[in-house]
Amino acid sequence: MVTQVLERRKETGEKPMIILGISGSARKKSYNTALLREAKELVPPGVELEIFGISDLPMFNQDVETSPPDLVRRFKDEIRSADAVLFSTPEHNYSVTALLKNAIEWGNRPPTDNSWDGKPAAVMSASTSMRGGARAQLQLRQIMIDLNMYAMNQPQLLVAEARGKFDSEPKLTDDKVRARLRDFVMALVDWTKRMQSSGISA
Amino acid sequence: MVTQVLERRKETGEKPMIILGISGSARKKSYNTALLREAKELVPPGVELEIFGISDLPMFNQDVETSPPDLVRRFKDEIRSADAVLFSTPEHNYSVTALLKNAIEWGNRPPTDNSWDGKPAAVMSASTSMRGGARAQLQLRQIMIDLNMYAMNQPQLLVAEARGKFDSEPKLTDDKVRARLRDFVMALVDWTKRMQSSGISA
Amino acid sequence: MVTQVLERRKETGEKPMIILGISGSARKKSYNTALLREAKELVPPGVELEIFGISDLPMFNQDVETSPPDLVRRFKDEIRSADAVLFSTPEHNYSVTALLKNAIEWGNRPPTDNSWDGKPAAVMSASTSMRGGARAQLQLRQIMIDLNMYAMNQPQLLVAEARGKFDSEPKLTDDKVRARLRDFVMALVDWTKRMQSSGISA
Amino acid sequence: MVTQVLERRKETGEKPMIILGISGSARKKSYNTALLREAKELVPPGVELEIFGISDLPMFNQDVETSPPDLVRRFKDEIRSADAVLFSTPEHNYSVTALLKNAIEWGNRPPTDNSWDGKPAAVMSASTSMRGGARAQLQLRQIMIDLNMYAMNQPQLLVAEARGKFDSEPKLTDDKVRARLRDFVMALVDWTKRMQSSGISA
Repeated sequence: MVTQVLERRKETGEKPMIILGISGSARKKSYNTALLREAKELVPPGVELEIFGISDLPMFNQDVETSPPDLVRRFKDEIRSADAVLFSTPEHNYSVTALLKNAIEWGNRPPTDNSWDGKPAAVMSASTSMRGGARAQLQLRQIMIDLNMYAMNQPQLLVAEARGKFDSEPKLTDDKVRARLRDFVMALVDWTKRMQSSGISA
Repeated sequence: MVTQVLERRKETGEKPMIILGISGSARKKSYNTALLREAKELVPPGVELEIFGISDLPMFNQDVETSPPDLVRRFKDEIRSADAVLFSTPEHNYSVTALLKNAIEWGNRPPTDNSWDGKPAAVMSASTSMRGGARAQLQLRQIMIDLNMYAMNQPQLLVAEARGKFDSEPKLTDDKVRARLRDFVMALVDWTKRMQSSGISA
Repeated sequence: MVTQVLERRKETGEKPMIILGISGSARKKSYNTALLREAKELVPPGVELEIFGISDLPMFNQDVETSPPDLVRRFKDEIRSADAVLFSTPEHNYSVTALLKNAIEWGNRPPTDNSWDGKPAAVMSASTSMRGGARAQLQLRQIMIDLNMYAMNQPQLLVAEARGKFDSEPKLTDDKVRARLRDFVMALVDWTKRMQSSGISA
Repeated sequence: MVTQVLERRKETGEKPMIILGISGSARKKSYNTALLREAKELVPPGVELEIFGISDLPMFNQDVETSPPDLVRRFKDEIRSADAVLFSTPEHNYSVTALLKNAIEWGNRPPTDNSWDGKPAAVMSASTSMRGGARAQLQLRQIMIDLNMYAMNQPQLLVAEARGKFDSEPKLTDDKVRARLRDFVMALVDWTKRMQSSGISA
């Protein structure tokens, strides 16, 4: 948990950059979740990537947004405490999953409490098709404009034809993709530092 | 329920056209749900508009898509039994709600059982902003391409600045919008008949 | 020219279906134009595919839309005379080319003279990337909603990694793609007949 | 011209920030061009907004992209010399104009010479409709991802129902819009400074 890292940070005085990782899939054998786990292994020293599972969040309902369940409160705390956000999204029907959109809505509400506000972010995707999630990525980027998140333009990471690039666990087995993922994560770290140094992000 | 109408249809020999109405909002005081209730009053003789509440559907999970809960089965039956679908969608973060996307995913899965396949459809939206849900409508239309639904192009119905057009119930109070809604519903009925007569829709 | 085919039609009494083919590229060695030429060879008896080159159209300017140059008038006549439209579009910067958008704007204007109105249509694309033009296709489909064109949902044709599928002329050399193109053209012919029989298209 | 300002800059030693203003309309009475002229009056001291007219650019053709006409070279010089770019775009058929897309393509090509690369940017729009150009703005933002431009998220400026907000010249007459335009320009200046201070933009 991001908040636990922050506790530890207080005790030791260390100040790591914390990236909150969110997978848009609830599948046990999700390629996108596997991609996020791999990213966690590739962050440089001084950076921690914490994955928050969003599949137990209830369905967003505006009628209860001002008194959300505890899990939602914790989720919003995690977002606020993070320095940056890394989304890994499947593509369902040319768009992001309902699961991911639901987490986004809780994070964004109520209007006075947009937890995503001002966060540097990146989006990656893994897909069994050749398109690699291109359409879902564009839709997520559109959503991030309204959230006032600062999405990294480049590099981009679309893992197409994922079946041949993960084993049955699934764990990423493709070295080229791993090298690109490492560069991608490094670029996000750099992007986050620059957005913070400029005062654009807190 | 669409399926109950079909039972009655069998008994009496009548053969109404059935439009399945789906609101993308779970709010008790949703303008979009109110718009759908109003549409139900405006359908011509021989047509019935049945509203299915999607807020109790569980979050979509691909791991259980081949053995979905009963409510999902009933929902998929409703879709399949309908002649056409009328979506009424809020706009959250420039896109459709997680709630609506979730219903769409259940309807679309598993791959061998896309319940939306070939259905004539229309999309309308109500919003407190001047944009009237324009961006959510476009995103839903993009999703419908993958679902192989046939979305009516014109007329379009975007109810902007909704606050002044509904009372506190909320019930539509704006006569101009009601007239446009009637035309919209009539156009959907015509569109559905033509898509069926052409053999494009079953 | 579509209009010449129509003249011939009058003389002989034959009544072919005419598909207007439009390539979004002005490149001499365009894969998209080559795809369109191949489609011309694959239309079934009773159907003619006429390609109209849009690269000499002047840039659209609303100030002269009511008295457009002769070439624009001829282009608009071609559209109106066609039974259906087949677009073949490159992807530039995640969207359709300026060249194609320009032709679309002339066809759509002035407001009282939308030549595209009610036409059945299909969109295909060839691209050197793995995405195959997926993003440009979606954007063109969005534009077609406003044009009131009826775009075929399925099948879809995205020729990815085009370099290996055409020779240097370029001429399509990939038999699998040719088979898919044939099916695609046949589906457009069927779609056009159905849209006309239903009275949706003239 | 941006390049002339730069000459003067060299002579006097002053170092203004230069914003390149581009209108997506060629209409003499364009609201979007008028909005840009108004913005020019509202820039703070030390900032200059230079408008470049794109209506004389030839249609983009990849076959000549490596030896473009002089006007294209000058346009690309202007882009490269600017600190930031401000687009003012009409909405044609739910997307940006062919005129604007054409300028974007010239600026982006050939592949080794993307003049837009790394530029801070903002997009505004004026429209006679209530939607205010919302759909064109989103499409332009999607295009800017590929161009690697850094588009400001907030504030946003969509001038809806423009007819009542400009006189016949047209010149902006609405004081509320002018105040919002001033804030918008100030935010772009701040965004540009921060992107440059962070080293993200040159």
